Amino acid sequence: MKSVNRIALLGLGLISGSLAKALKSADWPGEIWAWGPREPSLALGKQLGVVDDFDLDLNRVLADADVVVVGAPPAATGALLNSILPQLARREKPPAVTDLASIKGHVVAEIDGTYDFFVPGHPIAGSEHSGVGASDGALFVGREVILTPLPSTDADALETIREMWLQTGAYVTEMAIVDHDHALAASSHMPHMLAYALTRSLIADPLNPMQHGGGALRDMTRIAGSDSLMWRDIALTNREAVLRAVDDFSAHWSQLRQLIDASDGEGLFEYFEACRSFRRAHDAVLNPLPREGEEDQPT
Amino acid sequence: MKSVNRIALLGLGLISGSLAKALKSADWPGEIWAWGPREPSLALGKQLGVVDDFDLDLNRVLADADVVVVGAPPAATGALLNSILPQLARREKPPAVTDLASIKGHVVAEIDGTYDFFVPGHPIAGSEHSGVGASDGALFVGREVILTPLPSTDADALETIREMWLQTGAYVTEMAIVDHDHALAASSHMPHMLAYALTRSLIADPLNPMQHGGGALRDMTRIAGSDSLMWRDIALTNREAVLRAVDDFSAHWSQLRQLIDASDGEGLFEYFEACRSFRRAHDAVLNPLPREGEEDQPT
Repeated sequence: MKSVNRIALLGLGLISGSLAKALKSADWPGEIWAWGPREPSLALGKQLGVVDDFDLDLNRVLADADVVVVGAPPAATGALLNSILPQLARREKPPAVTDLASIKGHVVAEIDGTYDFFVPGHPIAGSEHSGVGASDGALFVGREVILTPLPSTDADALETIREMWLQTGAYVTEMAIVDHDHALAASSHMPHMLAYALTRSLIADPLNPMQHGGGALRDMTRIAGSDSLMWRDIALTNREAVLRAVDDFSAHWSQLRQLIDASDGEGLFEYFEACRSFRRAHDAVLNPLPREGEEDQPT
Repeated sequence: MKSVNRIALLGLGLISGSLAKALKSADWPGEIWAWGPREPSLALGKQLGVVDDFDLDLNRVLADADVVVVGAPPAATGALLNSILPQLARREKPPAVTDLASIKGHVVAEIDGTYDFFVPGHPIAGSEHSGVGASDGALFVGREVILTPLPSTDADALETIREMWLQTGAYVTEMAIVDHDHALAASSHMPHMLAYALTRSLIADPLNPMQHGGGALRDMTRIAGSDSLMWRDIALTNREAVLRAVDDFSAHWSQLRQLIDASDGEGLFEYFEACRSFRRAHDAVLNPLPREGEEDQPT
C-alpha cells in the first residue's frame, strides 16, 4: 500500500463504504474517491467523511487511481469491469483492480479479454442493512477476505490488494474460483435461501407463529430482511453451486424428518450432538460461545 | 404476588435461574428455594445469590411454598408433576403450580387426575447456553410468556402465575394448548431442526464451508449448539406439530428450488420481497432492525 496514493471506489454502499472507513481508521494516508450512478449516496458518503471526494464522471475518478475497487452488484460487476479495463490496460502502470462480488466464477467469465492486474475478491462480511449510511469501519475486523487470483494474475497487484485488506483488520486467504463459489454457496447463499423459505412458510400460517418468535426465530430469519435484488442476482449467477448446496441440505433434512417421524430418540440425539460439536468447534470463526465445561461457571 | 411468600423451583437451570434473578431484581420480597437432582448446580445457584436456599429433599422445599415452578425438561415434566400434585392437592390452600416446558399438550396429557391450580406456562426466551451459571435477570424483558390454562384452571392460580411473570418484564398472553404447540412448532421447534440439518449438511463437505462462514452462517447455526437432550425431547413430544411445520417448510423450500432451477429472476425477486416485508413487519417483536427509509441515514 506504500505506493498507493488514491483508491477509486466504483459504487458506494455498505461494503465499499466500510472499506473506506476502515482504511481511514487505520491512518492510511491516501485519498479515496467514489464514483456511482446515484449522487445522493455519493454526497452522503462525502458528508459522513467516508470518502474524500466523488464525481459522477467515471473517467475523472479513475484518472489518478492506483487501486480500483468495483462495488457493484454481482450481476453488474462484469459489465462495469468491461467498461473500464481496456482503458486501464493502456496505462504505463495499470492499476490493481478488485471487486467485492459474492460470486467469482460468473464475474470472471464475463470479462472480455484479459487484464492481469484484476484480483477477484470477496470480503466475508455484510449485514442485512445496505447503503453507505450503514458503513462500519470495524466490519472486517477478524473477518476473512477471500482472493481468487488466476494463474496469470500479476503478483504485485495481488500483493497490493492483500495489503489493502489487511489494513482493515481482516485476514486474507486465497482459493480457487470454483472452490470459492461452491464453499460460499454452502456457507452463505443456501443459508440465505433457508431463511427466505422459513419466513415464507410462516407468512401463510393462520396462527402467525412469527408473532410468538424468540431468539431462535430472530436469528433464523434476520437475513430474510436482506436486499432482494442482490440475492436474486446471487441465486441466478451462482445457480449451479446453490442448487448443489440446496440438494445437500435437502438430503439431510429428509433424514432428520425420518428420525422425527420414526420417534427415533437415539438417532435424533446422535444427529443433534454431531451438529453441536461441529458448531462449537467453529465458534472461534463464527462467534464466541462458551466452550464445553464453561457453562456452569458464573460469567 | 402479594400473598406469595415462598417460590419453590424444582430444577435450577438457565430459565428458572433467570426467573429467580428477575424477581430479585424486581425487589419481590419473598424467598426462593430450589430443589434439584444435582447438588453442584443448586449450590452454585445459592453461591451466586440466584436462590435463597436449596435442599435435596423435595418435600422440605415444597413444605412452605405458595408457588411451585417445575423447571424440568419437557419429557420429565409430567412425571415430576405426578409425583407432587397429589400431596399438594391435600393442602387446605393448594399452591399455584406452573411449568416452563416448550410443549404443553404432552405435559398436560401426562398428568394423572386433575389439579386445578396447575397453570401450564412457556416463557419464549432462552439461549444456546444452559445451566444456572448462565442465568440472566433481564432474559424475559420484552419477551412473551404464554400461559395455556384449561377451562378448569383456578382463576386465582392463573392470576398468581401471571403476576409472577409480569414482574420479570415479560408480557403474558394466553393460548389454547393445541394452538400453542402448533405455533411453537413453526416458530421455534422446526427452525431448530433447520439449524441442525444445515449444520449437518456442512459437516461432510470437503471444502469445510463453515470455515468461511460470516454473520449469516453464525446466526443460522447458532442454535445448533443447543442442548441435544432437550431438543430430542421436544422433537419426540411435539412430533405431530413439528412434522406439520417441517412439511410446510419443505413445500416452500421446493418452490424456491424450482425458481432457482428455472432461473426465474422475477419469481425469485417476488419471493424474497414478500419475505423481506414480512420479516421487517415483525422487527418490533423479534428485534429492532432499521425500518425502510432509515437505511441511508447516518447512525
